[in-house]
Amino acid sequence: MDVAAGNEAVARYREVLSGWRHAGQLEGIGGFAGLFRLPGDDSRALVASTDGVGTKVLIAAELRRYGGVGRDLVNHCVNDILVVNAAPLFFLDYLATGRLDPIVAAEIVRGCAEACRLHDCALLGGETAEMPGVYSDQHFDLAGTIVGIVELQALPKPHEVSPGDAIVGLPAVGLHTNGYSLARALIPREEWSAAFEGATYADALLAEHPSYYRDVRAIESVARVKSMAHITGGGLLENVARTLPANVAAVFEQSRWSVPPIVRELVRRGDLDAQERYRVLNMGIGFTLVVPLTEAAQACSAAPGAKVVGWIEERGADAPHVVVHPARGE
Amino acid sequence: MDVAAGNEAVARYREVLSGWRHAGQLEGIGGFAGLFRLPGDDSRALVASTDGVGTKVLIAAELRRYGGVGRDLVNHCVNDILVVNAAPLFFLDYLATGRLDPIVAAEIVRGCAEACRLHDCALLGGETAEMPGVYSDQHFDLAGTIVGIVELQALPKPHEVSPGDAIVGLPAVGLHTNGYSLARALIPREEWSAAFEGATYADALLAEHPSYYRDVRAIESVARVKSMAHITGGGLLENVARTLPANVAAVFEQSRWSVPPIVRELVRRGDLDAQERYRVLNMGIGFTLVVPLTEAAQACSAAPGAKVVGWIEERGADAPHVVVHPARGE
Repeated sequence: MDVAAGNEAVARYREVLSGWRHAGQLEGIGGFAGLFRLPGDDSRALVASTDGVGTKVLIAAELRRYGGVGRDLVNHCVNDILVVNAAPLFFLDYLATGRLDPIVAAEIVRGCAEACRLHDCALLGGETAEMPGVYSDQHFDLAGTIVGIVELQALPKPHEVSPGDAIVGLPAVGLHTNGYSLARALIPREEWSAAFEGATYADALLAEHPSYYRDVRAIESVARVKSMAHITGGGLLENVARTLPANVAAVFEQSRWSVPPIVRELVRRGDLDAQERYRVLNMGIGFTLVVPLTEAAQACSAAPGAKVVGWIEERGADAPHVVVHPARGE
Repeated sequence: MDVAAGNEAVARYREVLSGWRHAGQLEGIGGFAGLFRLPGDDSRALVASTDGVGTKVLIAAELRRYGGVGRDLVNHCVNDILVVNAAPLFFLDYLATGRLDPIVAAEIVRGCAEACRLHDCALLGGETAEMPGVYSDQHFDLAGTIVGIVELQALPKPHEVSPGDAIVGLPAVGLHTNGYSLARALIPREEWSAAFEGATYADALLAEHPSYYRDVRAIESVARVKSMAHITGGGLLENVARTLPANVAAVFEQSRWSVPPIVRELVRRGDLDAQERYRVLNMGIGFTLVVPLTEAAQACSAAPGAKVVGWIEERGADAPHVVVHPARGE
């Protein structure tokens, strides 16, 4: 994704809305999800988010491995509303393709249904569109919308984030649903079946976007979580920045976690500089939680793989919102 | 859309869900929208629907006329949840393209925002995805999800539909958002700028999908509406059938309404038989409401263009659910 074009689009959307805001809308956190007053109940809000799985669909289509993308999508959406602590209520999918193959469509939707069920989330509906001319025959796109609910008093409180707090990171298993255009450029189709790290490149590329729902709930039961971020397009640099107040900076020490082999491989092949690594790729961190330093150890023991990956520091006026110190030797 | 493939996909989706149903889900009517119990309030339900604008996007992209598709989409979604009498709360859009042009994206989203505002519906969020390889550079797809709310006691009661009831039709202005693959096959690109009915083919093809929200509300204020249908893909034959009990049939008299010129043109060019006309195209009816015969006149006077377009009759065991008598001479 052309990040500059994306940012300009967002700026233009703001202009389009030009201050118009429905009375039911509430302030969100970091733009991961929209909040809407629950009708008849001032203590709760509905939380909604729409997302897709990006060009990961091209790899799935090429390899005819359709099972995972539905789970990728639902898990991505679950994580997006989890940033404001919402529990899923229902999900709707949008599947569009050049020529509808009912068996393939059912396999994709089965993935959505499985992930929904694991979150006690209704698969409430969806749309399957056959659009020759927009998609080539075997190509498809998959997007979805989740609606959840949150108690307003359970919303994270990013304004309470303060210097000295720890940042707990939950491990990524691969690219999740971002960086696939880069990945396809660096790892050509011919190599996908080749051996890589005990499996194949295809396996590594299609590794499923995990849901952090249970891990986050477990951490919240033992530690005070002040702010969270889902590390998607924009990487640590943009996603963490969006969820912090202006007076603090997040400082990550990459030596504190391991980068999944497929991500490391992309960095190597593309000779990616720090900006690219931490903006286009998740670099091994899928979700972050800011907790008081004194509660960081409990937080980490509550979820497998959770680690302190950085700290909150004071931020100077022109200083960056997020800094990542690369691991030694990188 | 290959109707057989579509129906097979739906059958397979059912199999995938294999009886699994979230406790919050409520029975819908005709599959236009999903219903979910409003948390904390047993008297109301959230109503959600996801849809796209089909290959109308190809005509918009080709002609670089992006203003209307956002309104098409929101109005389509509003009508879908209106079938169960829901009022819109919020909407989220999904816009995907080969190469993101922020100006184009903003024009599309502006259309969504305008239509949302007219329905006092929050534009709560959305996703803009740049997906080279899935979409060609100028192509895009646009889908959206609407969430509304309905009082359970205000849900239509299709089981009360009985022989002798009248069917009130609200006029379509063109193809709305269905039949565009057929239209592009029958009216080649070279002709789009040619004069047609005082404007151009392009104008007729891009005529905007209207919202029937205000008309339906006006009719409901003067007549008892037992069942409604939004006439989208599947036409009168499938959409009306989905919203009627098994023991009745809807009988339409096409002489009672006028078919928009662009639709008439497609029928002529494609020499479409009755099945194609009434299944692929709306044939001039955008929305139907079943009312008691004695209240049909008031109903029609409440909304401009509303007409009695058919009746409910008893249905024999093997008889079709919907019959359309063509106009004389057709």
